[in-house]
Amino acid sequence: MAATPKYLTGDGAGIKEFIDKFDTFLFDCDGVLWNGDHVYEGVPETISLLKSKGKRVVFVTNNSTKSRQDYVKKLEKLGIPCDAEDVFGSSYSAAIYINRILKLPPGKNKVFAIGESGIETELASEGIPFIGGTDPNFRRDITPADFEGMANGSILDPEVGVVLCGLDFHINYLKLALGFHYVQRGAIFLATNADSTLPMHHAFFLGAGSIMIPVANAVGEQPTILGKPSQAMMDAVEGKFQLDRAKTCMIGDRLNTDIKFGIEGKLGGTLHVLTGVNQKADWDREDAIAVPAYYADKLSDLLQGA
Amino acid sequence: MAATPKYLTGDGAGIKEFIDKFDTFLFDCDGVLWNGDHVYEGVPETISLLKSKGKRVVFVTNNSTKSRQDYVKKLEKLGIPCDAEDVFGSSYSAAIYINRILKLPPGKNKVFAIGESGIETELASEGIPFIGGTDPNFRRDITPADFEGMANGSILDPEVGVVLCGLDFHINYLKLALGFHYVQRGAIFLATNADSTLPMHHAFFLGAGSIMIPVANAVGEQPTILGKPSQAMMDAVEGKFQLDRAKTCMIGDRLNTDIKFGIEGKLGGTLHVLTGVNQKADWDREDAIAVPAYYADKLSDLLQGA
Repeated sequence: MAATPKYLTGDGAGIKEFIDKFDTFLFDCDGVLWNGDHVYEGVPETISLLKSKGKRVVFVTNNSTKSRQDYVKKLEKLGIPCDAEDVFGSSYSAAIYINRILKLPPGKNKVFAIGESGIETELASEGIPFIGGTDPNFRRDITPADFEGMANGSILDPEVGVVLCGLDFHINYLKLALGFHYVQRGAIFLATNADSTLPMHHAFFLGAGSIMIPVANAVGEQPTILGKPSQAMMDAVEGKFQLDRAKTCMIGDRLNTDIKFGIEGKLGGTLHVLTGVNQKADWDREDAIAVPAYYADKLSDLLQGA
Repeated sequence: MAATPKYLTGDGAGIKEFIDKFDTFLFDCDGVLWNGDHVYEGVPETISLLKSKGKRVVFVTNNSTKSRQDYVKKLEKLGIPCDAEDVFGSSYSAAIYINRILKLPPGKNKVFAIGESGIETELASEGIPFIGGTDPNFRRDITPADFEGMANGSILDPEVGVVLCGLDFHINYLKLALGFHYVQRGAIFLATNADSTLPMHHAFFLGAGSIMIPVANAVGEQPTILGKPSQAMMDAVEGKFQLDRAKTCMIGDRLNTDIKFGIEGKLGGTLHVLTGVNQKADWDREDAIAVPAYYADKLSDLLQGA
């Protein structure tokens, strides 16, 4: 049984002690910093406060549709101070995993990507060859020639060694069938993240986990997940930032991704904010998926420890 | 432990006894009668033989893309004698379930259909109103206005009470998101069948079960399945043909759909033919999903009992 989380809101001394305990804060974005395009009040000031105290701030997101540069633009537009180096997305995590962990030989190292431009940008940043993605040749109906060419292999690229699946708003039967055929013929099956839903406009839509699942279901094999709560992502974050896990705290709004990510990564702490998906009742239940060490009504409550 | 299936090939007397035991034969089509567009040798003659002996022959298929009339055309083209009344498809099964079992009130009885024309034809044959299907308005990219309209409900049809998902070669994010939002708002979630794959060109592609799974995953709810091995389909077949289950035999090539369908339906017998998906080793294993009562190398071996 996990201990009861410590409630920080209104407890200035407790908040100061909390901040002093860590030198790095990993932030989930949606539901913590903003909802869609609406930044929560006091968030820019809170990030500035932590930076002024010499804390390292890293934005760790499962959103695979955006590259790190896309994210920096969004953060800046919302008035949140940051550098490209402060951002760590699931597409970047996947690119690092493919390039530095898998290390496939030339001639077998091409990626068939299901996803938007964020995946393409990050694969390119690591010098990984790829097909698919936003290429209009894959954004069309499947034809009888496609069925035949996949069945006999003639339209399959023999250099494809990885199928990487992220969130794709242009998903279609052709891409799913190609992903399925490549995996069936031995390609390594990866997903940027497994989130079943995507929060948007105060509602939910299908997330990356609901885009890759047709391939997983047809082939009978689950992909390796590179986003939260996968520890492949934590290892990549640690490798890049050389962080001391005991002095690192994960801040998020989802128990099954953010808080689980921090706990399984054996971080010094986890802080849950109530401005997103999960509420207090979600960890109070017997079968709670994860219980945070701290919680607060909102991120800007940390300003009370200034 | 199920008994060992009786092997019929080469056993003329055994085959005659087998045929005499039943008055109705339910046939799976793909893998039993044909592969794609290639009819197996001796199949038309075998169906003729059974008919000449006064047997009722019913073609029971999970293929949701074709209507019963489409199937009759295909059977006739391949030289297999049949009437529209002899065909029972999963789209028809779904239409019967919606119209005669669900009996939704007017104003809440519209179906949002994900699938091809077979679903549309069968819904229309039962007089069920529907949207979606092959309508070009749903075969396009999702737009920002769609996201907003789904989130606030303004583009959702308030009369939709059912989401019916079949095999759709034109699947896209827009249709999946609409299906998800309708189910989330209380629509009954149905699927024509749950086959994860679809045999074609001696290879496999994604089946209807891999088209509905993004919605199931995002909403956290499994649809009611109307195709084999669901007993909803067996009940509909029995209701229509007034068959005596004890004198009915299911013939198929898949243990997890056809043979399971016959066994759970408490039919008098099941015959597995080795011209399709599953082979002998699949029921010889300890954890076999189903074990047939009879098996033969191919359907036309039944001619040996003429």
